[in-house]
Amino acid sequence: MQERLILISNDDGISAKGLDSLIRIAQPYGKIVVVAPSTTQSGKSHSVSLTTPIRYEIRHSSKNLEKYVLFGTPVDCVKGALTKILPRKPDLMLSGINHGSNSAISVVYSGTMGAAIEASFYGIPSIGLSIVTHDLDADFETIEKTAPALIEKVLKQGLPDQVSLNVNYPVTTPEEFKGFKICSQTKSYWYEDFEETVDIHGNKSYFQHGHLVNMEPENPNCDENALAENYAAIVPVRADFTEYKMIDKLKKWNL
Amino acid sequence: MQERLILISNDDGISAKGLDSLIRIAQPYGKIVVVAPSTTQSGKSHSVSLTTPIRYEIRHSSKNLEKYVLFGTPVDCVKGALTKILPRKPDLMLSGINHGSNSAISVVYSGTMGAAIEASFYGIPSIGLSIVTHDLDADFETIEKTAPALIEKVLKQGLPDQVSLNVNYPVTTPEEFKGFKICSQTKSYWYEDFEETVDIHGNKSYFQHGHLVNMEPENPNCDENALAENYAAIVPVRADFTEYKMIDKLKKWNL
Repeated sequence: MQERLILISNDDGISAKGLDSLIRIAQPYGKIVVVAPSTTQSGKSHSVSLTTPIRYEIRHSSKNLEKYVLFGTPVDCVKGALTKILPRKPDLMLSGINHGSNSAISVVYSGTMGAAIEASFYGIPSIGLSIVTHDLDADFETIEKTAPALIEKVLKQGLPDQVSLNVNYPVTTPEEFKGFKICSQTKSYWYEDFEETVDIHGNKSYFQHGHLVNMEPENPNCDENALAENYAAIVPVRADFTEYKMIDKLKKWNL
Repeated sequence: MQERLILISNDDGISAKGLDSLIRIAQPYGKIVVVAPSTTQSGKSHSVSLTTPIRYEIRHSSKNLEKYVLFGTPVDCVKGALTKILPRKPDLMLSGINHGSNSAISVVYSGTMGAAIEASFYGIPSIGLSIVTHDLDADFETIEKTAPALIEKVLKQGLPDQVSLNVNYPVTTPEEFKGFKICSQTKSYWYEDFEETVDIHGNKSYFQHGHLVNMEPENPNCDENALAENYAAIVPVRADFTEYKMIDKLKKWNL
């Protein structure tokens, strides 16, 4: 039987602690090829490098693990892996573990989920994993103990074509952890603030930072609220933006 | 009555011909504030600048038109406009006219639609407009003649909270143009190729280019196929990635 091939990427870059944790989680399940960005790509969403060329370098090669750094976005990493680096289509794609939440509307901005969603386009079962803290030294013990059960289920059951899983973990000890909850994406948006900074020439510029506005705080079945209850939230994700229930209304506009 | 305020952005940058065309289309409907990226942001999707500060400069100011250039992504432009530049929430947001198709799965990669979708998060009726050619000198005559009817409908009827319209135009003369068709997003993916280029030090790098694989070529109601029939395709868009029909299946996994 052919050895299982697993592609791993992330958006925090090749040096992130969350990437090392994900490699440890995945190693029992097959040969791992990491193709990760050289630097942080947080907030890069589904972006692709179209006007600049993409370069990659091998950084590690042993029997069951190869690591490549790619100078581009997380989606570039998946495209580069599938087009140039991997010997064949992988059996599984894992993205993360992201340092920071990708629940609710954050999925739209997420490079981690950009990579997972890109892999799903080619019929590769894919999972994006995140923890809801930006702490670079986050504790991944709960994830390392519980994610294998999820990975085994995905390997056994598969996922529908073009569907991936967006999995967000709360910050908890294994004892406090309530388990997985299947959820919908929380209706929400980011309220933005722009913090002014002035350079040595007196020019103003702005760092954006904000907070999530949860538009359905009473819904127990959406990811943001499941996380608040110490569940890991699993949202099945498909990048079909169509608002189907609006189609008939628009037809009545008689354009 | 307060004058109508219209925000315009794009992903081809402040100098694009498509932006000038959209300003001409919108000018009868109110005061226009353009906040557009300094350079091309094609393929930037919903990305935001998180690790670099955002700067903007005014470029033009007259009674009914202000133009700002912003050094960031299309979504940064919308966030900057709403947070720092505009005196109040605009009544309408227009994005484009993009030089290149944003139909089918391209909506996921599109900076043009990133900006339109971002505006919809704040309850601003928004429309992204594209023409299916990358020609920088594209002919926008058909769009300039027909888009006003669509804009007037949106101004009159509004759009639901967090819904925007993704409008793609074929390359046609006004005579060949068949009118608008309300569509779903074509199930599809991009087949990628990586074209090798070698720098003066002998290092290889790659430009990605590909073609869209249409997974539902017989569906008359999806955007890609409507465009092939010389219709302008209108897809109502909501950035809810949840694959609802998968939720019950996942619950049966008993994780």
